[in-house]
Amino acid sequence: MAVAKAWWYRELPSRPRPQGMTTPWECSMVQTTERVLVSDLRERVGETVSVCGWVNTLRLQSKMQFLVLRDHTGMVQITHRRCGESDEIEVALEGLTTESAVRIVGRVVDNPIVKLGGLELVPQQLEILNRADTPLPIDEHTSLDQRLNWRFLDIRMRPQAQLLFAVQTTLEQGMREYAYGQGCTEMHTPKLMGTASESGAEVFKLGYFDRSAYLAQSPQFFKQMAIAAGIDKVFEIGPVFRAEPSFTSRHATEFTGVDVELAWINDVEDVMNFEEQMLAHAIAKVADAHGNEVRESFGVEITVPTTPFPRVTMAEAQKILRAGGWDPAGMKEDLDPDGERGVAAHFLEQTGHEFVFVTHYPTSIRPFYHMRPENDSNVTLSFDLLWKGLEVTTGAQREHRYDVLIKQAAEKSMSTEPLQDYLNAFRFGCPPHGGLGMGLGRVLMILLGLDSIREATFLFRGPNRLTP
Amino acid sequence: MAVAKAWWYRELPSRPRPQGMTTPWECSMVQTTERVLVSDLRERVGETVSVCGWVNTLRLQSKMQFLVLRDHTGMVQITHRRCGESDEIEVALEGLTTESAVRIVGRVVDNPIVKLGGLELVPQQLEILNRADTPLPIDEHTSLDQRLNWRFLDIRMRPQAQLLFAVQTTLEQGMREYAYGQGCTEMHTPKLMGTASESGAEVFKLGYFDRSAYLAQSPQFFKQMAIAAGIDKVFEIGPVFRAEPSFTSRHATEFTGVDVELAWINDVEDVMNFEEQMLAHAIAKVADAHGNEVRESFGVEITVPTTPFPRVTMAEAQKILRAGGWDPAGMKEDLDPDGERGVAAHFLEQTGHEFVFVTHYPTSIRPFYHMRPENDSNVTLSFDLLWKGLEVTTGAQREHRYDVLIKQAAEKSMSTEPLQDYLNAFRFGCPPHGGLGMGLGRVLMILLGLDSIREATFLFRGPNRLTP
Repeated sequence: MAVAKAWWYRELPSRPRPQGMTTPWECSMVQTTERVLVSDLRERVGETVSVCGWVNTLRLQSKMQFLVLRDHTGMVQITHRRCGESDEIEVALEGLTTESAVRIVGRVVDNPIVKLGGLELVPQQLEILNRADTPLPIDEHTSLDQRLNWRFLDIRMRPQAQLLFAVQTTLEQGMREYAYGQGCTEMHTPKLMGTASESGAEVFKLGYFDRSAYLAQSPQFFKQMAIAAGIDKVFEIGPVFRAEPSFTSRHATEFTGVDVELAWINDVEDVMNFEEQMLAHAIAKVADAHGNEVRESFGVEITVPTTPFPRVTMAEAQKILRAGGWDPAGMKEDLDPDGERGVAAHFLEQTGHEFVFVTHYPTSIRPFYHMRPENDSNVTLSFDLLWKGLEVTTGAQREHRYDVLIKQAAEKSMSTEPLQDYLNAFRFGCPPHGGLGMGLGRVLMILLGLDSIREATFLFRGPNRLTP
Repeated sequence: MAVAKAWWYRELPSRPRPQGMTTPWECSMVQTTERVLVSDLRERVGETVSVCGWVNTLRLQSKMQFLVLRDHTGMVQITHRRCGESDEIEVALEGLTTESAVRIVGRVVDNPIVKLGGLELVPQQLEILNRADTPLPIDEHTSLDQRLNWRFLDIRMRPQAQLLFAVQTTLEQGMREYAYGQGCTEMHTPKLMGTASESGAEVFKLGYFDRSAYLAQSPQFFKQMAIAAGIDKVFEIGPVFRAEPSFTSRHATEFTGVDVELAWINDVEDVMNFEEQMLAHAIAKVADAHGNEVRESFGVEITVPTTPFPRVTMAEAQKILRAGGWDPAGMKEDLDPDGERGVAAHFLEQTGHEFVFVTHYPTSIRPFYHMRPENDSNVTLSFDLLWKGLEVTTGAQREHRYDVLIKQAAEKSMSTEPLQDYLNAFRFGCPPHGGLGMGLGRVLMILLGLDSIREATFLFRGPNRLTP
């Protein structure tokens, strides 16, 4: 990054310098040359450059000192020949610790015998910007829970974790690219609600001046309000909160939701069509940008899905599962995790596809605002999307007719009073619409073959974890 | 949007159709032709198309019925010649209300005498998808507060409000484009915190299973943790929460923050440089996409700022203000809103620039984690960015040296115990870094010349407002 110092002195030399200041910015760091990323060093052979990064390893021999420096683009060997006690670099290297943050100025030398890219840096200056304590609190044998306590080190020291956030960035870029291309508007809906309206259960409650507020479990009601506000297609990526005491590998109390809501749809097929196109586009972008790295680092092949994805009704999915022996006690309307895996396995075998939309969920296990077909009030015009057997999305066409919505809320024994702001949106010309909510962490978990959503989140939040 | 129905029946014809279903998706809507947006009708003259939108106006004459239909792309006249009581369209139009959501199938006719683009639609079918109640609860004379109660109608009925969210989308697109180009990683930091660590004041507290949690006032600590985690440049757009009982036109209890944090900076200039480039890029993108519409709708000319923006130290800013007679009681270290406007007016006059960075804020009014220059502990290496006299950003180089950070926390009489997770990030090789936090609503407010942040937010949240 180029340094543009003291603009107003250069451009407006007549302006007086504030008293007591010698230069506009002063801090403890010496900077002699511009920073070069490790991945760009090959182009700088013969030059003196500055590199910044962490001490990956130190090898201090009697005549030579070797330091491997790591930045987010790679690693380079720093080779220093000892030359006695008055050698400041020698002394500094002797007292150094792994994971310390350093800046090194040195000459880039082409040296084919160096394993790291046939390059080394001969240091002329070494600056310890932040020395790491010893011992480090985690290493490669540390348990996941303990690693999460030191998540910043866990991420920094594992290239796999670094890659995960690069993949996340590209994935979101891809989803936004598709959404913008379809005319979506990016909305930011409130996370603070006046009533715990969507379900009442599993909602966090907070003190709000002299009253209470609730954290939104999803942007559901608000994105529908945006539809009623004439926004044609709504897109949002943001946090959602679930006060659910779940300790599984796929649940969190706070996670990042990708939400879409589409106005003037013909039916819920339009929503599924949007989702499969969006995912195919985003996954293709990830495969393109990171496919090789992901294969090397995670041992996972990123398969760009073909569209359309297979679809199966819940009734048919259960028929398929029962034919295969699935018969969980008390499980008549929903799929348990075993059932989800079974459906996915069936369609993988039949169609070769990793994704499957399960449609027509029973009314009894869907919220009151899911639309039902004209001729069958037992099912909803809804879907879940399973990827490799894990639910990554719930979607539906929403009921936009005020009278039907009121009737469906009553059937679910919901009090309409706390719902009034929501219901009002359907009294003045709300168009037909539908949408979906996707868990970003779950998508990443499946994409990269991770065992737990804890690994797919920067700082995981669960019933027992609110730190760091 | 194309409709791809019943894929699994088409592709796998041998698969049995679930019992009781006649078609996979059934609902109450008739769809004969694909939806055409109003802005695309000119290309469809002579064709029969379907348009979807809201009843903007109705003019029911003795022989003719006129309906102006509005979608998010424009308005079109529907012209119907009455032909008697058995005429379903005539009856439907007679009972229609403004703002009802309708779908109309009709023939596009070129008619130069029609004021709306010289086009009209002769209806063959009219479907009322959601009839609006009468009277509408708001009109053009309604107060802002009452409009916010019916925000969905307020936004839908005012093209200006529609445009605002299009501008927001483009602005964010522009900021992300710049950030990605600079190698930023998009992070999602938690909004739930275990301790009210950053300041303790102005934090919302919530019940979290058998304990308490707090809502993040900013991603500050977490984005610094991402820096310690080896993420080179952090970018986040997400909600921040302030339990501040402020009722001004520029404060909200929940707003969208744009956060950036940059590792390995040389000094805070790198942060200001990033911000001015990012804003210039994003504003240019908005000017390009919406400049004309914004001029027509908001009466505001979007000026793409030149870089670098002017910079002035707080000490110098105060000297300039006092020379102009500014001398607020008790205001010795900070700028009051009058002072911010005064500084902005001065630099607008001197340099023609709408932006100005005010730098070197006194230590006493900055948080403990702002870095201070080596030779002057009375000021911080920090800045605010003023745009047209309103603060839109606070930024700083952060103190990354553990011992100095501990000392600065002690000087501010902060207990380090609740800060321990944060402080740990500086014990194992945290690089120098700095960043900024920008209020998206404020940027939109200034960009579009709005009087209140309430107008620049989808659903405003303040001490007295948690609905809708």
